[in-house]
Amino acid sequence: MSKIITLGEIMLRLSPSANDRFIQSDSFRVIWGGGEANVAVSCANYGHEAFFVSKLPTHEIGQAAVNALRRYGVNTDFIARGGNRVGIYYCETGASMRPSKVIYDRAGSAIAEADPEDFDFDKIMEGADWFHWSGITPAISDKAAELTRLACEAAKRHGVTVSVDLNFRKKLWTKEKAQSVMRPLMQYVDVCIGNEEDAELCLGFKPDADVEGGDTNAEGYKNIFREMAKQFGFKYVVSTLRESFSATHNGWKGMIFNGEEFYESKRYDINPIVDRVGGGDSFSGGLIHGLLTMPTQGEALEFAVAASALKQTIPGDFNLVTEDEVKALAGGSANGRVQR
Amino acid sequence: MSKIITLGEIMLRLSPSANDRFIQSDSFRVIWGGGEANVAVSCANYGHEAFFVSKLPTHEIGQAAVNALRRYGVNTDFIARGGNRVGIYYCETGASMRPSKVIYDRAGSAIAEADPEDFDFDKIMEGADWFHWSGITPAISDKAAELTRLACEAAKRHGVTVSVDLNFRKKLWTKEKAQSVMRPLMQYVDVCIGNEEDAELCLGFKPDADVEGGDTNAEGYKNIFREMAKQFGFKYVVSTLRESFSATHNGWKGMIFNGEEFYESKRYDINPIVDRVGGGDSFSGGLIHGLLTMPTQGEALEFAVAASALKQTIPGDFNLVTEDEVKALAGGSANGRVQR
Amino acid sequence: MSKIITLGEIMLRLSPSANDRFIQSDSFRVIWGGGEANVAVSCANYGHEAFFVSKLPTHEIGQAAVNALRRYGVNTDFIARGGNRVGIYYCETGASMRPSKVIYDRAGSAIAEADPEDFDFDKIMEGADWFHWSGITPAISDKAAELTRLACEAAKRHGVTVSVDLNFRKKLWTKEKAQSVMRPLMQYVDVCIGNEEDAELCLGFKPDADVEGGDTNAEGYKNIFREMAKQFGFKYVVSTLRESFSATHNGWKGMIFNGEEFYESKRYDINPIVDRVGGGDSFSGGLIHGLLTMPTQGEALEFAVAASALKQTIPGDFNLVTEDEVKALAGGSANGRVQR
Amino acid sequence: MSKIITLGEIMLRLSPSANDRFIQSDSFRVIWGGGEANVAVSCANYGHEAFFVSKLPTHEIGQAAVNALRRYGVNTDFIARGGNRVGIYYCETGASMRPSKVIYDRAGSAIAEADPEDFDFDKIMEGADWFHWSGITPAISDKAAELTRLACEAAKRHGVTVSVDLNFRKKLWTKEKAQSVMRPLMQYVDVCIGNEEDAELCLGFKPDADVEGGDTNAEGYKNIFREMAKQFGFKYVVSTLRESFSATHNGWKGMIFNGEEFYESKRYDINPIVDRVGGGDSFSGGLIHGLLTMPTQGEALEFAVAASALKQTIPGDFNLVTEDEVKALAGGSANGRVQR
Amino acid sequence: MSKIITLGEIMLRLSPSANDRFIQSDSFRVIWGGGEANVAVSCANYGHEAFFVSKLPTHEIGQAAVNALRRYGVNTDFIARGGNRVGIYYCETGASMRPSKVIYDRAGSAIAEADPEDFDFDKIMEGADWFHWSGITPAISDKAAELTRLACEAAKRHGVTVSVDLNFRKKLWTKEKAQSVMRPLMQYVDVCIGNEEDAELCLGFKPDADVEGGDTNAEGYKNIFREMAKQFGFKYVVSTLRESFSATHNGWKGMIFNGEEFYESKRYDINPIVDRVGGGDSFSGGLIHGLLTMPTQGEALEFAVAASALKQTIPGDFNLVTEDEVKALAGGSANGRVQR
Amino acid sequence: MSKIITLGEIMLRLSPSANDRFIQSDSFRVIWGGGEANVAVSCANYGHEAFFVSKLPTHEIGQAAVNALRRYGVNTDFIARGGNRVGIYYCETGASMRPSKVIYDRAGSAIAEADPEDFDFDKIMEGADWFHWSGITPAISDKAAELTRLACEAAKRHGVTVSVDLNFRKKLWTKEKAQSVMRPLMQYVDVCIGNEEDAELCLGFKPDADVEGGDTNAEGYKNIFREMAKQFGFKYVVSTLRESFSATHNGWKGMIFNGEEFYESKRYDINPIVDRVGGGDSFSGGLIHGLLTMPTQGEALEFAVAASALKQTIPGDFNLVTEDEVKALAGGSANGRVQR
Repeated sequence: MSKIITLGEIMLRLSPSANDRFIQSDSFRVIWGGGEANVAVSCANYGHEAFFVSKLPTHEIGQAAVNALRRYGVNTDFIARGGNRVGIYYCETGASMRPSKVIYDRAGSAIAEADPEDFDFDKIMEGADWFHWSGITPAISDKAAELTRLACEAAKRHGVTVSVDLNFRKKLWTKEKAQSVMRPLMQYVDVCIGNEEDAELCLGFKPDADVEGGDTNAEGYKNIFREMAKQFGFKYVVSTLRESFSATHNGWKGMIFNGEEFYESKRYDINPIVDRVGGGDSFSGGLIHGLLTMPTQGEALEFAVAASALKQTIPGDFNLVTEDEVKALAGGSANGRVQR
Repeated sequence: MSKIITLGEIMLRLSPSANDRFIQSDSFRVIWGGGEANVAVSCANYGHEAFFVSKLPTHEIGQAAVNALRRYGVNTDFIARGGNRVGIYYCETGASMRPSKVIYDRAGSAIAEADPEDFDFDKIMEGADWFHWSGITPAISDKAAELTRLACEAAKRHGVTVSVDLNFRKKLWTKEKAQSVMRPLMQYVDVCIGNEEDAELCLGFKPDADVEGGDTNAEGYKNIFREMAKQFGFKYVVSTLRESFSATHNGWKGMIFNGEEFYESKRYDINPIVDRVGGGDSFSGGLIHGLLTMPTQGEALEFAVAASALKQTIPGDFNLVTEDEVKALAGGSANGRVQR
Repeated sequence: MSKIITLGEIMLRLSPSANDRFIQSDSFRVIWGGGEANVAVSCANYGHEAFFVSKLPTHEIGQAAVNALRRYGVNTDFIARGGNRVGIYYCETGASMRPSKVIYDRAGSAIAEADPEDFDFDKIMEGADWFHWSGITPAISDKAAELTRLACEAAKRHGVTVSVDLNFRKKLWTKEKAQSVMRPLMQYVDVCIGNEEDAELCLGFKPDADVEGGDTNAEGYKNIFREMAKQFGFKYVVSTLRESFSATHNGWKGMIFNGEEFYESKRYDINPIVDRVGGGDSFSGGLIHGLLTMPTQGEALEFAVAASALKQTIPGDFNLVTEDEVKALAGGSANGRVQR
Repeated sequence: MSKIITLGEIMLRLSPSANDRFIQSDSFRVIWGGGEANVAVSCANYGHEAFFVSKLPTHEIGQAAVNALRRYGVNTDFIARGGNRVGIYYCETGASMRPSKVIYDRAGSAIAEADPEDFDFDKIMEGADWFHWSGITPAISDKAAELTRLACEAAKRHGVTVSVDLNFRKKLWTKEKAQSVMRPLMQYVDVCIGNEEDAELCLGFKPDADVEGGDTNAEGYKNIFREMAKQFGFKYVVSTLRESFSATHNGWKGMIFNGEEFYESKRYDINPIVDRVGGGDSFSGGLIHGLLTMPTQGEALEFAVAASALKQTIPGDFNLVTEDEVKALAGGSANGRVQR
Repeated sequence: MSKIITLGEIMLRLSPSANDRFIQSDSFRVIWGGGEANVAVSCANYGHEAFFVSKLPTHEIGQAAVNALRRYGVNTDFIARGGNRVGIYYCETGASMRPSKVIYDRAGSAIAEADPEDFDFDKIMEGADWFHWSGITPAISDKAAELTRLACEAAKRHGVTVSVDLNFRKKLWTKEKAQSVMRPLMQYVDVCIGNEEDAELCLGFKPDADVEGGDTNAEGYKNIFREMAKQFGFKYVVSTLRESFSATHNGWKGMIFNGEEFYESKRYDINPIVDRVGGGDSFSGGLIHGLLTMPTQGEALEFAVAASALKQTIPGDFNLVTEDEVKALAGGSANGRVQR
Repeated sequence: MSKIITLGEIMLRLSPSANDRFIQSDSFRVIWGGGEANVAVSCANYGHEAFFVSKLPTHEIGQAAVNALRRYGVNTDFIARGGNRVGIYYCETGASMRPSKVIYDRAGSAIAEADPEDFDFDKIMEGADWFHWSGITPAISDKAAELTRLACEAAKRHGVTVSVDLNFRKKLWTKEKAQSVMRPLMQYVDVCIGNEEDAELCLGFKPDADVEGGDTNAEGYKNIFREMAKQFGFKYVVSTLRESFSATHNGWKGMIFNGEEFYESKRYDINPIVDRVGGGDSFSGGLIHGLLTMPTQGEALEFAVAASALKQTIPGDFNLVTEDEVKALAGGSANGRVQR
């Protein structure tokens, strides 16, 4: 059991039931999620002491966000309380050739307006083994970017391994802004997770493959990976490779590079996809667990890919699986026979 | 059939089912409402051509708000489209001694950031018979206060009757700010709706009765009413009088003053209350219909009070009743026998 | 255990959830009910072999109606299969001063168009102890009236006790038509259930009390009862007496007359009413059980009144109670303490 | 923005949730639909002023039908009010090798019994650009067939383009009756939509291909198309071509013939199908929009096919998509990546 | 119509909605099922008089189990009433590579603790045509194993055909215990249903094929079948052959051996699977119907396989299909076109 | 913030929706509760570090129970994991004269079969301020009674205040058995909560008042209280006093005796009751908080009574209120005006 810190935003996700569209829906399911919160839940599910660091209002909607994390075993002691609103995202689930759709309504959330005084990062990082954040956190606001930097510095002071999921979000910032913020933060990072598109938009690397077209030919990624490791000194560069056939049918695998060797995982055919939101986060969560507990990068990656494939069969952002379930899939069959 | 204009904000109301509290809820019912939108729906239900004037984003959540109004026959041609977000309010329904609770998340909504150029008030008011707004609209933002003033001026230019529901909201502004904005707007108003508390907070009148205690002794209001009519030249001063016994049991009646005579309505015992949100708005809607179509202020008030009593037996903000149903209650029995 | 026959229509009832109005509802609960079907379910619940005689289409909606009856132990062997449609009624549940509302869509249902050849009434009545029908059955159509007559004749041939619930429905026929059909059928009736309004509209008796006003002064009924017993030779004349304070609060009791003595039951204060539809039918069902198994008309009536009070706390048309539950209420306290 | 008229019936569709069968369902989702109403909604979604012409009862179920149309922007000013019932169809959704099932209960609906006096077709057609109807409308009743003829004549008087979707329904009429009614109506038609089976059953053309077997070899249709255009002078003959692999997996494309050239669209693989009801109507709606606004028949057809492919991923009869969404699919990828 | 007896346990199945996992679910759907109860429902659906023999508590949960059977036409006259609890199983539905999961909580159920005196097997078997049980019944408890033996003996005394579905359940007993109980019971069996795994675990036969891998090469089964028929004198040995590609995609066929010839059925591709629980039971139910009513073992098997393929598209344990629906699939196309 | 320990069982409560009866319900709401677990949630809500001590299976249903506690901030570190089943209780909610009904299915649950080795009570009690248990815990099984004794002894060793809620449950043990177990445990108790009925059945005191009749005349309790304090040396004797008018309308107050003086609280009229299960537990939770943080027994009692009145307006076993909400009610008005 390691102590794992994540920093970011948890949002209220409002989703129509099943495949309903927003405009025909008369109720929304209440789901809680956010990149780093999702990672924290994964880590807690695998038995770690996972802390999610953020800020949430004192009112009941803020409390409900705290409770959602506690329910799945995440430690919420470092969540500052205050501010006015909980960020929201509306999410409708597509099917076949109709894509899922996300509408963000997160401006002005408590964490976007949080101050450094809301957090004691030295206390937070003390004794920690791992600190994970994503490119969404510094993109939320300049204040949040400052918090990210402070957290990274504290992590380094305390010898904590740092991972980032680059996760470029075009609704939150431009490519130029992203690079000006993200590139300086890379000095603190040990493990960098992100596909080619993220590498280009967040860090300025030139892409080689046509990601849109669903091409997951891993060769195309290798040069980028080598460059990234070289330029920023990452211990590991990691990416998922998704083939998008339709909103409900994807191919899914991953690749990892430890500066010396590449390892490419098994490929899963996910059909149907139940909910792909949080797929990348469940990959990060699985990877952190793998790198913390397994002897080789290959085993860590296989765990991460199996975990994230399972996630996409589960409604909601959180990956509600156990370590045993992931290992059963990573190590064995995907034939889906009933477990009695 | 008259042409009736209302100006304000329509919000997405998210409510747990039945009597669930926010923090135990895993789905929210999608309800649409807002003071003036609720009045528009009432007017449309009574057969008028009711326009709701506001601004809503182009995305699907904005569209869903437009659709909610169209569904009940409100004309949405004057709703400007743009901006980023739809205002939200979370509302849980109390019971017995547990009060209902509302959490607002409306800052930065499209209408709060709308500009005068979004609306052509002369076109809007042309041929209109009635313009209704509430104290919530100018409280949303300074921009919205400016829009209110422009709308009032245009209404007066076109000879439109203007009504206001004072509706003080302490979460939106202070008493001082309210008075500085509201008092100058009273020059445009013909019909002023508001209880003693509103009269004090929005207009600076000194209260006589203990509203908190549920005292609806109408005598206590009369002096205030006379003062209001005198000071601002209102043609009618009107108020509901609510006795709050519990969250699910209220007494309900109304009083109207035409500058000469007072009329006090029948009293209804509402038990159980199904949803009291929108009760005041349904009163305003009923009153507008009554004053437009009935010979005496007494008949208009009885219609308004019956309409708003019925509203409190209906889930949601909108008063989904017909003129016939209101008249059946106003004119007859409240014994609730099955209508086959 | 007696063999009890009922004849009538079972309909698909479509109801919005909780207190929603029709026009705001996006789903309907599927409920099955109909006067005589409800009586059959009550009798089955009390341990009798209860047969419901009707006609239903062969398609799945017809089958679902059959299944609803079988689920609660009603014997469906005498239900003819054929015809095109299952009758429907839409029912929204009121609250406080808002009445519940029923919209019928039952024209052309399979039973309304059934022929005498669909039923072998001698086989049906053979060995039966009781035959119950209501004024709704002959009102459905001339064909259904003919079926009612044939069933009554067969019942008399086989020495079966016959009860009727007069149940005048103004949407189905006029007072004049009702009397022309119902009066000749009274010769077959042993037990006549109906309030003053029914007695007037179906049989032509002049009312004494103001039923609309919720007056349940039992004295007002006694002369009518005596007249009814005298004119048609009923063994028992029975009525419920409802005081309607609101859609959710009623007083409830009953009166019975065996040609010699009157017995008036305890009075129950039903608050809240959960679903009053089927209240009268549950009274008939309880009365049949009481008269079949209890030594005095008083005990039978108390059982019937307690049964029908309980019904009004249960969603749906059927009275889903056991004999023990009814006896516990009839014989004891109504304090509603948790049964563990 | 064009003015588009449609004439037909809107029905209450009652559907079990998800894949439940009728007989296991304890609630029905309330969905509104009907061939021409579905087309009207599509046209309104693409920005046209779409009128749906029909007749509906004044009661709340009739009102709910009106509201469903208003909600999605359809103009309901020409809907006559009166009659007794709203037509119903029960629809359960199949999966894999289990087909979806529809049970109609539409006899005696308000539009089936409507009279010519209920509509002023000259007023309706004045200034209109397009009039669309389907073979269902005249099949409902002789009265409705007469209305269809009157509407077609008025359309021609006002120079309105007329389209028909042949849409043979064997539950409503025989092949012989269909041809006797439909063939004379073809003189008014400019755009004829229908597959080989419809062409045979409604118009008497001899089929070439085995439609049941899911053969969409477009060549088989060409001779029929040429014959149809020649015999009735259609400006366009159009058809969808469906390959039915299972209830949840279909191939889908379309073909159009302008009297000179054939154009065959892209083929979509729809897997899973969420709700195929309304697929043909959404094709008609897309085609009308395409022919009204696009330079070539090919572009119009591609829009129609993409629109109708999307429809089959959306629950309910209505095609709740925007023009932008359809164009994104028609012009680009169907890979279903999340739209953030 | 034959008289068919089944003996076993019916359980309350609690299932999260759609693809939700147990730990994220805030409501459970109430489903009723159990191997032999499912067979009884199938038989009732095909028009037989099907009796389910078991024991259930007198409380409401026990009654609800009885009602679930009655609803679908199963005769419950031989269900003994008493004992303390209804067995429960929790079942979550997987998707893609995530398997469905079952948690049993059935110890101490009424049938597990039933005594021989609870049943009069001679009365039960009198006039019966078929008696079916599965390997689950004797596995429940030693008492239930004794009941199974008594029922088999009575069946033989009355000349009733006996079928068994071997159905090994590792949570209920070991291979050794299973064989010690099951092998002696085989002397009463005419029709033995079970795959290779069951044959090995319940009867001690050595498997030839790798069932886990989804290999349905029917040749591998033939030797086992011959051995089984020889050793125990079965008239028929029957098995389904499932290819598990994922939790939502299976291949499905069956094989039967009458001691002389093998017949292998059509193969169905079930995609998506809606609910595979009860698939084997629906096969048994279909097979019983087929062997009772059809001329050849091949026709019986095709009916059984089609029935059980359909079952897997229907939520819940029960196979809610009609004989016509099964025959339509067995004899024709699986293209899933809408049935109107 | 104090450290508070509770010991007992948490059960899965399965409840039909709204007022549905068990036998008409097709889904059950998943609720978690149990006497001491409910107290723990109350204490956590008031800001204490509350530990719930019990044993739960490792499977997902056991995990869901743990998660339900974590969600509301209860520390689950001392919950042993193992055993086979989670106790269940079925609970339907009554209305008016129909009582709520509870069916227990808890035999053989993990905590009923737990061993002393599953818990290190010295570690658990170290540093604790308060230990609470109820008469249900030792009634579950002899093993659980032994655990209770061990916990009490450890509490005394560590100077922890001990409270008990006597809570006699006739389904779990007899009066004789209860007294033989409970009386010896009283030596460890500082605060004894229980009404007259409990005092009689658990401790052998002779009642003075007719509790069944809803008589809450506090005088009747005083002698019992004095006796209890004298005989067992309790520091406080406390009771709620419930007047049961119906299942949905109760009077509610409390009384406390500190060995010297009696204090009787305000009386609340709870109408409607939403869910009375857990009312007594919320009283205990409020009382513990009151006695730990407030200067007088009167203030503590008023807090407890207000807390438990609020509970009965909230669905589920847990009292989801904040300290501020309770204080607002205890100190002020119960008029239920909307909190905006």
